[in-house]
Amino acid sequence: MKKKVSPLPFKKLLCEFLRLFYAKGWVSGTGGGICGKLSARQVFIAPTGVHKERVQPLDFFTVNPSTSKILKAPRNRSLRLSECSSIFCEIIRSRGAGSVMHSHALSAVLAADLSQGRDRLLIERFEMLKGVRGVGNMDQHLIPVIQNTPVESKLVSQIRDIFSSSDFKKTFCILVRDHGAYIWGEDVWETKRHAEVYHFLFEGVVGRSKSI
Amino acid sequence: MKKKVSPLPFKKLLCEFLRLFYAKGWVSGTGGGICGKLSARQVFIAPTGVHKERVQPLDFFTVNPSTSKILKAPRNRSLRLSECSSIFCEIIRSRGAGSVMHSHALSAVLAADLSQGRDRLLIERFEMLKGVRGVGNMDQHLIPVIQNTPVESKLVSQIRDIFSSSDFKKTFCILVRDHGAYIWGEDVWETKRHAEVYHFLFEGVVGRSKSI
Amino acid sequence: MKKKVSPLPFKKLLCEFLRLFYAKGWVSGTGGGICGKLSARQVFIAPTGVHKERVQPLDFFTVNPSTSKILKAPRNRSLRLSECSSIFCEIIRSRGAGSVMHSHALSAVLAADLSQGRDRLLIERFEMLKGVRGVGNMDQHLIPVIQNTPVESKLVSQIRDIFSSSDFKKTFCILVRDHGAYIWGEDVWETKRHAEVYHFLFEGVVGRSKSI
Amino acid sequence: MKKKVSPLPFKKLLCEFLRLFYAKGWVSGTGGGICGKLSARQVFIAPTGVHKERVQPLDFFTVNPSTSKILKAPRNRSLRLSECSSIFCEIIRSRGAGSVMHSHALSAVLAADLSQGRDRLLIERFEMLKGVRGVGNMDQHLIPVIQNTPVESKLVSQIRDIFSSSDFKKTFCILVRDHGAYIWGEDVWETKRHAEVYHFLFEGVVGRSKSI
Repeated sequence: MKKKVSPLPFKKLLCEFLRLFYAKGWVSGTGGGICGKLSARQVFIAPTGVHKERVQPLDFFTVNPSTSKILKAPRNRSLRLSECSSIFCEIIRSRGAGSVMHSHALSAVLAADLSQGRDRLLIERFEMLKGVRGVGNMDQHLIPVIQNTPVESKLVSQIRDIFSSSDFKKTFCILVRDHGAYIWGEDVWETKRHAEVYHFLFEGVVGRSKSI
Repeated sequence: MKKKVSPLPFKKLLCEFLRLFYAKGWVSGTGGGICGKLSARQVFIAPTGVHKERVQPLDFFTVNPSTSKILKAPRNRSLRLSECSSIFCEIIRSRGAGSVMHSHALSAVLAADLSQGRDRLLIERFEMLKGVRGVGNMDQHLIPVIQNTPVESKLVSQIRDIFSSSDFKKTFCILVRDHGAYIWGEDVWETKRHAEVYHFLFEGVVGRSKSI
Repeated sequence: MKKKVSPLPFKKLLCEFLRLFYAKGWVSGTGGGICGKLSARQVFIAPTGVHKERVQPLDFFTVNPSTSKILKAPRNRSLRLSECSSIFCEIIRSRGAGSVMHSHALSAVLAADLSQGRDRLLIERFEMLKGVRGVGNMDQHLIPVIQNTPVESKLVSQIRDIFSSSDFKKTFCILVRDHGAYIWGEDVWETKRHAEVYHFLFEGVVGRSKSI
Repeated sequence: MKKKVSPLPFKKLLCEFLRLFYAKGWVSGTGGGICGKLSARQVFIAPTGVHKERVQPLDFFTVNPSTSKILKAPRNRSLRLSECSSIFCEIIRSRGAGSVMHSHALSAVLAADLSQGRDRLLIERFEMLKGVRGVGNMDQHLIPVIQNTPVESKLVSQIRDIFSSSDFKKTFCILVRDHGAYIWGEDVWETKRHAEVYHFLFEGVVGRSKSI
């Protein structure tokens, strides 16, 4: 996946994934989002406040992840850059992510509820853990859980704390209480895989909590 | 979305949304419906008693929302105007709605059950609340809950009471106990967003009620 | 819907409904089925033991509903007439049904479980009840529940008892414990509507039983 | 289904089934897999670690099921043979399977949880049991449950024990705790039917365990 990618097919793939995530209920009600890094200095970020399954290649913002500054805005001036932008860039910088998706799935909210006020959710006894790079099915996997804030940009400082903690070295996911999750990977394909894996795990811990 | 719209593409969009709502389980068994305002004096309303995912542009009634009178009926004389018609017109008049959808989703029924006989359901601690125009994720959002009646037209007086109450200024949704919900927006796109947001919230409160 | 229908489009519609029912999880694992009456003496019945979403028009048996005898078998000699055939014909004869669907939905099984050994399930407080012809949303609707038997043909005598009882005059559905349901209507469209309505009601009573 | 099959249509069918299984949530996050036997000495096995709904005919490995050795690898050298390969071959040899699917469905994990440490899960009172070849709806059907291990190849010895036990003669499914299931049939069509039937049964026992 490290080969050179062209901007248009890459944006089309991001749009395809938004439609897929919408079908799964992860980005409904215009919530959620996605970004993908074309190069070290160019990341494509979907606009905010639009129906995500209808985003088109021309709708993306191009942002410099080092500075979080907009390099190029879409022609359609009614489009606004996602509030997630600074979070996406932070994750790209701190974790070397090539893509990040932001989920508004209910399963993410219910999974975060299970952490009951703690700053982490422990996941164990799932083969699906092997779908997270560097994690084994016998591991106890810790997903950080942060507090929701009135605007998404205010989540950044909590996210920096997580990235500076040694407890969460292995995670590719941050749960935001009452809100959803940020999930990333080295490229869009790993982000898709991690998104499917983590949502499975959210549904798994919620399902197990109910059967008892 | 304030630009001039042509009747046929607009009706096609309403049909597309009916198919989408059907796929989500909100308008099954011929239940539920949708309307969209073309102009101040013309609202298109889907017929009643038909399989909603199969409604075609020619099947819509044109109604004057100020008077609730039919301006134009479809050629197919077997089609009847939805019982919701007077409710749709009331919401358009009182709230300046440009579109209203009527949901028969089970999640709406189960959410209304949680109000346990009270006339309101409190929603809080959901980022998705930001998807409702004018509402923040730290707000306590009140959704009115009215009693079901043998015919839908009899719901109108309860709806007028809600619109005259100061408690429900911020809602774009009315839950009808044992029945479903009416959800609206300034245009069809906001109605779609609000429909996705409110159904997420219904599933959210039901999901949270079960995990405890 | 009382107009003359041609055999091929009619069979295609039955196939379309089988695909729809499969997508809803009602006829998975080759279970379930459908029939539709072309005329007083000809009913098309889908074969048994095949993947229902892949049934083609040429695969249908033509049966005389008065005698339950096969008038015409498909050319493909590996196809066998559904065990449901005698049940379908019984429902056509006794209730004047124009179409019957047989569901293997889990929601039907779980709804029957709620009857706890009694021969009926009471459904009330659902607007969706209006989707059943002749039933109102304030009615207490009784769905008969019969015992499962090793072979489906043995269900016929229980079904005759139900049809001779005055308790179940209003039902268009019979639940079979641990098994599923038979749902019918005056034609295929009403059968589709009734199928959607009854499955909604199954999910409704199961959903309500869990939230308490 | 015993007729001669050509390699390409057969691989296309395996790809179609992977897309179907993905849509059902059985092979998400690159998990799960499928294989199909072309002849006594050639079985096609999907690669591991790839998004299963995107597998193409050229991506399959050809393996000799008698020796578990690769006969032909795909041209794309980044593709790796599934860890399941030795399990698939064991099931083909010991049970005469013509196809095996490996599920990562959450319902399989939650069903295995219900066995509570025992090596088996009893399924009864489901008509859908008739969808398992040789099983009746009045039978008590035993599904073996084995322990998960760090790598899938280590599951083989447990699977051999199950195949040597007289308790599990009738099963076409093995549950792996915290992991998923292996399900097979005499050909791909029976494997598809068995997959649908067993997943229905998993959801059934989980659904029943929650309603009490």
